Amino acid sequence: MTNKQITLKKRPIGLPKEDTWQLIDSEIPALKEGDFLIQCEYISLDPAMRGWLNDTKSYIEPVQINAVMRAGGVGKIIDSKNEKFKTGDFVYGQTGVQQYVITNGKGYHKVDPNLAPLPMYTSVLGMTGMTAYFGILEVGELKEGDTVLVSGAAGAVGSVVGQIAKIKNCKVVGIAGGKEKCDYLIKELGFDAAIDYKNDDIKEQIKTHFPKGIDVYFDNIGGDLLDAALGRLALHARIVICGAISQYNNTSAVKGPSNYLSLLVSRASMKGMVVFDYAKDYQKAAMQLGIWLSQGKLKSKEDIYNGIENFHETFLKLFSGEKMGKLVLKVKE
Amino acid sequence: MTNKQITLKKRPIGLPKEDTWQLIDSEIPALKEGDFLIQCEYISLDPAMRGWLNDTKSYIEPVQINAVMRAGGVGKIIDSKNEKFKTGDFVYGQTGVQQYVITNGKGYHKVDPNLAPLPMYTSVLGMTGMTAYFGILEVGELKEGDTVLVSGAAGAVGSVVGQIAKIKNCKVVGIAGGKEKCDYLIKELGFDAAIDYKNDDIKEQIKTHFPKGIDVYFDNIGGDLLDAALGRLALHARIVICGAISQYNNTSAVKGPSNYLSLLVSRASMKGMVVFDYAKDYQKAAMQLGIWLSQGKLKSKEDIYNGIENFHETFLKLFSGEKMGKLVLKVKE
Repeated sequence: MTNKQITLKKRPIGLPKEDTWQLIDSEIPALKEGDFLIQCEYISLDPAMRGWLNDTKSYIEPVQINAVMRAGGVGKIIDSKNEKFKTGDFVYGQTGVQQYVITNGKGYHKVDPNLAPLPMYTSVLGMTGMTAYFGILEVGELKEGDTVLVSGAAGAVGSVVGQIAKIKNCKVVGIAGGKEKCDYLIKELGFDAAIDYKNDDIKEQIKTHFPKGIDVYFDNIGGDLLDAALGRLALHARIVICGAISQYNNTSAVKGPSNYLSLLVSRASMKGMVVFDYAKDYQKAAMQLGIWLSQGKLKSKEDIYNGIENFHETFLKLFSGEKMGKLVLKVKE
Repeated sequence: MTNKQITLKKRPIGLPKEDTWQLIDSEIPALKEGDFLIQCEYISLDPAMRGWLNDTKSYIEPVQINAVMRAGGVGKIIDSKNEKFKTGDFVYGQTGVQQYVITNGKGYHKVDPNLAPLPMYTSVLGMTGMTAYFGILEVGELKEGDTVLVSGAAGAVGSVVGQIAKIKNCKVVGIAGGKEKCDYLIKELGFDAAIDYKNDDIKEQIKTHFPKGIDVYFDNIGGDLLDAALGRLALHARIVICGAISQYNNTSAVKGPSNYLSLLVSRASMKGMVVFDYAKDYQKAAMQLGIWLSQGKLKSKEDIYNGIENFHETFLKLFSGEKMGKLVLKVKE
């Protein structure tokens, strides 16, 4: 039994290329006392992973060259020398992009495949859902009746953010690319409106949908969209900086928001977030998200691709706009 | 008796020129019931005035063409048909740049020239002091022991911000232009250090003075300084956007902070402020500032120029870096 792993071969400049990664076969060592062996089933693919490839100071160490690519994943324990984690248990944790992983359980928690399909634990019941939940409610300080704009709205985090805001009786407008995604936001997820950044006049649409300004802008994209939102803030607006996917593969400097002085005009704030800060409240949030899912108030969509050997081309779908909802890679053969 | 007034003749593009303003003589109308006549003595000159010249949506209406230029000022009531404001009283309010003004008293309050010299009511005891006080304490959420960086530190607001932070037992570093200003910050105002943006390597100096990062950055300048500060934030840092004097006379787009994703890495916030929002607490703040002044913990410096006919060239000193402390124009002949 060998373990197929994706390792980081070379730090990319701009968009990762084939030679960024290496697919290797490695042996699975014998279990030590306290360890257990997980067969990984689904791997979470996230825009943040692009940042982990850069050798710069950030909220987390960069992935080292020749190390297994970092990723969240869910799998089944197939062997154990750990009393708390038994063979047959399903767990979520930082498995990395590989088929098997041995761990002492630090940072892992059990998940129940009878309560929700396994891939959902990488999406709405995983870091994606947590990011959306704490981002909009805590960092965005969402209040009932707020007007909310979400970029990357058909994506993993954005789609959950918008739905939570609808549950909280807010007016929600999403920005997404193409008619299919925009229709999905309105018809499937109950958004009040959608702006198609590929075909609409974004500024004009924002003006139309926010006659009194935006109370909360949840930004996953950065660049021109951030500037457009800054140009239409309501008094005391909150901008949540969750990500800036438009800038992650830049080979030149990041585009700073030239409309940032709107923060002054509107007495607004722009605040960055990292989901790990809310770890002590994950359980509470998971319960609430689970309840909303079971009540049909919250929908989860996973876009699942097959095969660890397809990691690279699947990963690129994060940036090409080709996928809808949460991008997941099935690595169990 | 005629009234010399500075009116807005033409909206400037970039730095105001001679033809931006017009000096006119106008008649002083007779007082109506409820009104009173002020002889203006000192006019407050502030970077924010540049923004009021642009015909764009902002926190306040732009000054209209041919209207008297808006400004705060302090003067003496020389005639009154208002029971609450008597002849001989001294008042502060939005007098505009002129020698006399008639008002019903809305937005005016009395000041006492025996408690503090009149010009001080345009600076540390006026909007300048209020901006510093609420900016660093409320918007910046200053805590004892914080590390604080202030740009425009030898300016009107910045010098007060730094001193308040010292009173609160913080480590304070100011950014100013030239050795004289830097010496003044350290030797006169008690700053821990100063960075000379004209001669020092700013990034390197910030790194040296903030080995563990900046807790609060109070920004009056914007541009490269904002980016440099963003590059060195401590966890949960707060950036106060008070102004962006480096950008006010831009003829091209404002330079957005390309390091803004540090907000995410450091879970930091960037918040805009307008002092008018704190009007209900002005009195409390004035009392505290007065006490600090009387205890010698807070120093005020006014750079006073003479003559309403010198308004234009004096105003330009806001942007040339030629003045130190608060810029004031004496308009009483």
